[in-house]
Amino acid sequence: MAAPHRMSEHGLRGFCEEVFLRLGVPLDDARITTDVLVTADLRGIDSHGVARLPRYVTGLKAGSIRPKDESRVVKETKATALIDAGQSLGQVVSVRAMDRAIRKAKDTAVGIVVVRNSNHYGIAGYYAMMALAHDLIGMSMTNSAPLVVPTFGRTAVLGTNPISVAAPAARDRAFVLDMATSVVPRGKVEVFDRAGKSMPLGWAVDASGRSSTAPKAVLEAMAKRLGGGMLPLGGEGEELGGHKGYGLALLVDVLSGVLSGAASGLRAYADENRPDVGHFFLALDPAAFRPIDEFKRDMDRLARELKESAKAEGQTRIYVHGEKSFARTETHRKEGIPLDAKTVANLKKIGAELGVAWPE
Amino acid sequence: MAAPHRMSEHGLRGFCEEVFLRLGVPLDDARITTDVLVTADLRGIDSHGVARLPRYVTGLKAGSIRPKDESRVVKETKATALIDAGQSLGQVVSVRAMDRAIRKAKDTAVGIVVVRNSNHYGIAGYYAMMALAHDLIGMSMTNSAPLVVPTFGRTAVLGTNPISVAAPAARDRAFVLDMATSVVPRGKVEVFDRAGKSMPLGWAVDASGRSSTAPKAVLEAMAKRLGGGMLPLGGEGEELGGHKGYGLALLVDVLSGVLSGAASGLRAYADENRPDVGHFFLALDPAAFRPIDEFKRDMDRLARELKESAKAEGQTRIYVHGEKSFARTETHRKEGIPLDAKTVANLKKIGAELGVAWPE
Repeated sequence: MAAPHRMSEHGLRGFCEEVFLRLGVPLDDARITTDVLVTADLRGIDSHGVARLPRYVTGLKAGSIRPKDESRVVKETKATALIDAGQSLGQVVSVRAMDRAIRKAKDTAVGIVVVRNSNHYGIAGYYAMMALAHDLIGMSMTNSAPLVVPTFGRTAVLGTNPISVAAPAARDRAFVLDMATSVVPRGKVEVFDRAGKSMPLGWAVDASGRSSTAPKAVLEAMAKRLGGGMLPLGGEGEELGGHKGYGLALLVDVLSGVLSGAASGLRAYADENRPDVGHFFLALDPAAFRPIDEFKRDMDRLARELKESAKAEGQTRIYVHGEKSFARTETHRKEGIPLDAKTVANLKKIGAELGVAWPE
Repeated sequence: MAAPHRMSEHGLRGFCEEVFLRLGVPLDDARITTDVLVTADLRGIDSHGVARLPRYVTGLKAGSIRPKDESRVVKETKATALIDAGQSLGQVVSVRAMDRAIRKAKDTAVGIVVVRNSNHYGIAGYYAMMALAHDLIGMSMTNSAPLVVPTFGRTAVLGTNPISVAAPAARDRAFVLDMATSVVPRGKVEVFDRAGKSMPLGWAVDASGRSSTAPKAVLEAMAKRLGGGMLPLGGEGEELGGHKGYGLALLVDVLSGVLSGAASGLRAYADENRPDVGHFFLALDPAAFRPIDEFKRDMDRLARELKESAKAEGQTRIYVHGEKSFARTETHRKEGIPLDAKTVANLKKIGAELGVAWPE
């Protein structure tokens, strides 16, 4: 593979914002959507970064994503709200939904806002992390297109349904868990397929519903809808706890899909003109329970205990969740954001179509 | 192994209640504690059932568990509360804490109650399921003694920290996820040790911090505090997502330990005279978002989609979480609760000491 292209954060932001503007997205919303995408790249989650811009461009052109924010609050209490996204950009609606959850948490100690009729919202961690600036705990989940097979199943019924939770710390970086509930994303199987390598057992099943080391068998079965799919965290069957990962994926569908009245299970993304994605956001004020400084100090101590504990043979470092992504963000800010050749080509093509200059 | 002894639910309840009464626990609280223990056995989670009675008897005798409920509300808002358990029985305080969360959810749509300075509370699922009778979603977590190694570590820093979430359904049984965040409990390693069998790779690490198939090596390392411990869901390293299970275990410690100000990380259970366990309880009203009948109908549909989806080769059935336990409860009510010989001997010994007749 060729060395990745490195882009300045500034240039990449300008390009994406201009693309969204040309497609009728208002400036503020173009900035929000761009920020969610570029933040993913900065944190090293390139599967959810600007590489996905083509998907949003296609949606905006086709009308399945509305350029202007057409969301509305359907039902509200002091601590909760249900928002119908009106098929607006998932990022725009989600930032506003999490903002609302945060305001509620400041007022009522906890705020829960769920969203239906939305689009793909990017990285779950972005919204959970919004709580940190307010010294709150944040939580974010979303359902997604069926890609994951239930334990003992051979067809995908659930999405990779991510869970993110962020909690503030004092001197240390915040705790930021941001995880799909599948073992790995489909993109990882594709990487092994392109490299012509066999993959570890326990990542995905082929058309038989059994775990396979052959990326091509899995991807072909999925493409032809012959079955196959990603395995939930814990892998195949129950021996290594696959039923637990399956339960977490289902939990996310309950809280983001069923609770909001969005599409869930097999219905998620069933109609490509109306993806009807569901999200779940929670903000919680630790100060409702104990002084925030004590909470943060204990977060630091707990992180230290983990990081300073004895390392396994052959290992030199134990991480706390979010740590690697904060480090990558610093590197990418200094050295540029790495983009692969295919992503660069796709972005340039979009730029050419919409008359947006490529920043170099 | 000898065939298990089968006890009537009624007899077992009477015995346990009487034991608690003799140790100074008031009748109502004896009934609560017994109900949590026997419910675990009914659901087939025998590791957390009456087999643990000796632990509670020891704690009550030693004074680390107070027989009377000495809990008090330290801080409270409309939607939240912090309770100091005063070292009372974990089950008694937890039932009252979840009751409080439920009352808050009825009033404010969501209630979150955290508890510090508590004792072992039994099965997490008991408290989450309390929400079901009120048509609410329930959530329960607790931290526990260090048994689980962080990814790339060789010593246990976190507990098996369970997460339980229950959501009501219409015709179908409720969704009840009740899972430790480790791959398996330590008890499972002990079962393989007693049988003299090697166990699957990915369950636990020995003193080197590497995954081992030798139960004895793991148990001895743990007993001698030479390192070793259970692996988080996802197993060793990051290849199968072990860092995700580690993140979930840490999340539970943040929400039940750090948020409440209980002992967390290495400090959990560090002082056996004051275990200082932390719990987290949440109740959420789906009706704050959409009509409860619609919510329940969609829960049924989602469960049906999962259960009716194509089975993997060699499999005949896909389960939804809670289903197996509801079935076991029916069987155990009809045929009696199976107890192994060691548990029966331990219980009889307690009965003899306290002058409580064994019910047969």
